[in-house]
Amino acid sequence: MNANKFKKPILWSYYLSSCSWRVRIALNLKKIDYEYKAVDLLKKMGGDQFSEGFSRLNPKQEVPVLFIDNQYLTQSIPIIEYLDETRKDGFRILPEDPVKRAKSRIIAEIINSGVQPYQNANVIKRINNESKEMRIKWLDFYLNKGLNSVEEALKETKGKYCVGNKISIADLCLVPQVYSAKRYKIDLAKYPLINSINLELENLPEFVKANPENQPDALK
Amino acid sequence: MNANKFKKPILWSYYLSSCSWRVRIALNLKKIDYEYKAVDLLKKMGGDQFSEGFSRLNPKQEVPVLFIDNQYLTQSIPIIEYLDETRKDGFRILPEDPVKRAKSRIIAEIINSGVQPYQNANVIKRINNESKEMRIKWLDFYLNKGLNSVEEALKETKGKYCVGNKISIADLCLVPQVYSAKRYKIDLAKYPLINSINLELENLPEFVKANPENQPDALK
Repeated sequence: MNANKFKKPILWSYYLSSCSWRVRIALNLKKIDYEYKAVDLLKKMGGDQFSEGFSRLNPKQEVPVLFIDNQYLTQSIPIIEYLDETRKDGFRILPEDPVKRAKSRIIAEIINSGVQPYQNANVIKRINNESKEMRIKWLDFYLNKGLNSVEEALKETKGKYCVGNKISIADLCLVPQVYSAKRYKIDLAKYPLINSINLELENLPEFVKANPENQPDALK
Repeated sequence: MNANKFKKPILWSYYLSSCSWRVRIALNLKKIDYEYKAVDLLKKMGGDQFSEGFSRLNPKQEVPVLFIDNQYLTQSIPIIEYLDETRKDGFRILPEDPVKRAKSRIIAEIINSGVQPYQNANVIKRINNESKEMRIKWLDFYLNKGLNSVEEALKETKGKYCVGNKISIADLCLVPQVYSAKRYKIDLAKYPLINSINLELENLPEFVKANPENQPDALK
């Protein structure tokens, strides 16, 4: 057996990154102890993610990156799938039933590929350079489109959490997305299911511990 | 057992949609016979995806939608995962080894959440409304950023295909992405690994059959 299997995992993260946040929740649910390495995406001189060292870890110059089992893994959804597949003891993040698995992945992907790409720092900077008006319309359109799709999906799948009464990958994506929507002043009153599930989730210890304000690089 | 399990699957698709294309390849690899329902995303009067009937199927008003096992499933990556998990006989689209599974999902996600959201028809229309110059810079930036990340990932994972010598979910995303990049006149000479793997893939019968030009709604 490879000795590296027992090296402590390392997570390169930025406290406000919603994709890093999803992985922080997953690591907490799985009770995996890890070292936190902060990558300051917004540093005045251009951001740590553009440094030569970090670009070697992830040429896409984005967080999260997780070092685990002697592998450097990127992309939050594949990381969560990997953790769930390789650590079958304890909490399972993907539902066992294939249809529920699909429905939880669908909600996760509506957020991951349908909302997050339109609200990340790089995109917002680019749009804002064009005009502030465009930025406002852009965020209003894409966040509401995604949140509306999640709300519709939840009508079929919801229990206490996104898919029934057990936490799944959908919930790991929902909480950071709601936080982003609030930062961008989206009216969440239109999404009662999202709101009520988010309230259930946000005070669970694994979610509290993963919250941006509880990360070492949070601005105090 | 549910009689619906034996109803013929239906795929709502648009011939040029790269996400529909991924699912078409998956259905072919799995040898699943299906009914093709064309959704004309670019119709002059606003697009079939905005119709009331289709919006009920997918409130996000996007293709693909797959009806299978009495479920309506959206989002290409979760659909492919579902097909692979529920049809374990025959071709497996996700590698068996957990690290290879992760690496194939990472390449798929670089394309799915890191490139496709920036090149779909809705976004390009929105950007083009701002200015043609912005559209050109936008596509150049996001497509090259994504393709460069895929090329870097392939240095570690490549064999004949994206991850070793067996077709995986990464390949299902690669071929439609290369096609889009060519349509947008991205210089692919910078990406020799992507190019050579794409050449291996594009003439395989399951890929040929899934090609836009071979769909019933292709413009003749």
